[in-house]
Amino acid sequence: MAAVDTPALVLDLDAMERNLERMAAFARSAGVRLRPHAKMHKSAELARLQLAAGAVGVCVQKPSEAERLAEGGVDDLYLSNEVVSPEKLERVAALAGALAARGGRLALAVDSPLGVARLAAAVAARRAELDVLVEIDVGQGRCGVPVPEGDASAAIALARAVARSPGLRFAGLQAYHGNAQHVRSVEARRAAVAASAERARAARQALEQAGIPVPLVTGAGTGTFAYEAASGVYGELQPGSYLFMDRDYADNERDPAVPRFEHALFVKAEVMSVGPRYAVVDAGHKSHAVDSGAPRVHDPSGRFDLRFETAGDEHGLLWPVGGSPLPALGDAVWLVPGHCDPTVNLHDGYVAVRGGLVEGRVDRLIRVDARGAIT
Amino acid sequence: MAAVDTPALVLDLDAMERNLERMAAFARSAGVRLRPHAKMHKSAELARLQLAAGAVGVCVQKPSEAERLAEGGVDDLYLSNEVVSPEKLERVAALAGALAARGGRLALAVDSPLGVARLAAAVAARRAELDVLVEIDVGQGRCGVPVPEGDASAAIALARAVARSPGLRFAGLQAYHGNAQHVRSVEARRAAVAASAERARAARQALEQAGIPVPLVTGAGTGTFAYEAASGVYGELQPGSYLFMDRDYADNERDPAVPRFEHALFVKAEVMSVGPRYAVVDAGHKSHAVDSGAPRVHDPSGRFDLRFETAGDEHGLLWPVGGSPLPALGDAVWLVPGHCDPTVNLHDGYVAVRGGLVEGRVDRLIRVDARGAIT
Repeated sequence: MAAVDTPALVLDLDAMERNLERMAAFARSAGVRLRPHAKMHKSAELARLQLAAGAVGVCVQKPSEAERLAEGGVDDLYLSNEVVSPEKLERVAALAGALAARGGRLALAVDSPLGVARLAAAVAARRAELDVLVEIDVGQGRCGVPVPEGDASAAIALARAVARSPGLRFAGLQAYHGNAQHVRSVEARRAAVAASAERARAARQALEQAGIPVPLVTGAGTGTFAYEAASGVYGELQPGSYLFMDRDYADNERDPAVPRFEHALFVKAEVMSVGPRYAVVDAGHKSHAVDSGAPRVHDPSGRFDLRFETAGDEHGLLWPVGGSPLPALGDAVWLVPGHCDPTVNLHDGYVAVRGGLVEGRVDRLIRVDARGAIT
Repeated sequence: MAAVDTPALVLDLDAMERNLERMAAFARSAGVRLRPHAKMHKSAELARLQLAAGAVGVCVQKPSEAERLAEGGVDDLYLSNEVVSPEKLERVAALAGALAARGGRLALAVDSPLGVARLAAAVAARRAELDVLVEIDVGQGRCGVPVPEGDASAAIALARAVARSPGLRFAGLQAYHGNAQHVRSVEARRAAVAASAERARAARQALEQAGIPVPLVTGAGTGTFAYEAASGVYGELQPGSYLFMDRDYADNERDPAVPRFEHALFVKAEVMSVGPRYAVVDAGHKSHAVDSGAPRVHDPSGRFDLRFETAGDEHGLLWPVGGSPLPALGDAVWLVPGHCDPTVNLHDGYVAVRGGLVEGRVDRLIRVDARGAIT
């Protein structure tokens, strides 16, 4: 491990595999499908591990992400996001055809009549077929058609537009409540999901009363998946971060009834300067994302208690807490990123290790295939 | 421009070239050397434009950045940061040799005896030569040896260690005050630089009294460069962001006596969903950095007044301000990033346009050669 140049994105394979199996076991015992969100790791190799552990496929957020993962051998992809650009929809239709030709499948979310019409045109031109999920806004206030109290008319209209478009199959409802994921208290998180699941249940019921079968309600994330699973509404879960567990998710109050996930993703940094009362490491905004706050310093040795203070694109300050010593010039330091998804997107690959961060050895390099795939 | 897929990093070449020339003209008239910081744009092509406009070379922050720019034809590089890892210092020494062989030059900052000793060992093994600047802490509280009131003993000791190391030449003082760059008021910014320039002046004097000539004091950034230039202490300026001007620098109170720079860097996004009171664009944390806050919406049409709210890795919300209309599904939207450096680092290239963002045409693609070069 000493030879790993810094800053580096390091993946603790032992911890990651335990997280992988824990979520797979949860989904099996809960009787729901697991479709992890690959926007988080952006890696075909890690997606294939999730599939091998029982996932039915993976979610992605962008057409280019879907393309890179498909190139890496992932066959069942759900683009759980809206796409309205005709050029992008051409790529979506082409990919749907390519995946179908090898026994796979592409699905897409929609939330507008224009989106459905443009998708239908692209699919017709390619003679492709596509599963389409209608996104409903169950509380996040971002994408999705509104489903106010008892009124699912917009969702019904979209589902009908999908169903009457040749090549498009209405496959269910996308019902993700992103804001609920990081509500800190267990009770408030549970309550937020109870409300969003109730909206999804009412919308599904309204569609079925209108004669439109709803094969699936899909959604949920690492902060709430157990509550969506328990609701009886969701047939599929989309968590992503559970595989790596970042600092922000670990800051949630833990529900003892929910599987525990371990930190598996780290940024290895090095002390490059020592000041009078702090040390400076060679990792800043270009090594880890700070949209969810600064990383936490992880000390495998148990000798240090250090607080990370952001100090620019290439620097971070380490302040001692409660009389802790400071690491010395050249020492390695391990950071748990605040938010794994945009941190991973800064790196071309993971240094995957076994046997611990310090004593362990490098097992292999894992590519971030969809790094920078944002279109 | 309609064909540019979103999100995309767009460079307004006309605005950028005006910024380029304004800073070059300022440095000429102030009689100081200009060595722009290429950590910001990470592009060999843009560095070569800066050199052609009169810059003496460029700064970089990491050995891998230096390597990529050197591959792209940049010959005079100053790594204005500390490097202590022996493996990295081997690369530094190798690059110094390669640049010298083609008539170029590499310089490095140091702030520790260990750093000097390891650098000297790497340089001796390669029979390379290197200019070395001793970094002093003039107020930022990050890297650099302390130079408390009248006491430059640590800087003197380091300069002597450099001077007696074969292959190392003491080339002056690195004296950058990063925190001063974004102090909002002109007076407070000016006062911060007055204090840091005074520390640099005293340190230089102490070194010279100790018999050590100080050929150069180098530092400054886009927020303060005119004050360092006016101090009479600094012989070289290192601004980077002036070339693109991000939202955070534009939020500084402007000093009418200082050249004005225009926004030249944008993220082109597209409206992908429209909610009841907001629009959603396809750009989030993975398209632009938010360490310095959210982007500002730039509206070339003058029809809209919109506030950007961060809504995740792939989404942003646009809220109307003061009765503004909302853009429609599929409309293009232009964002001025909060912080240009880490935003550029998310992208593989710039779409460089001439003739305006909307009416203009794509002139060429410019590579971000050192994207992800963080080691």
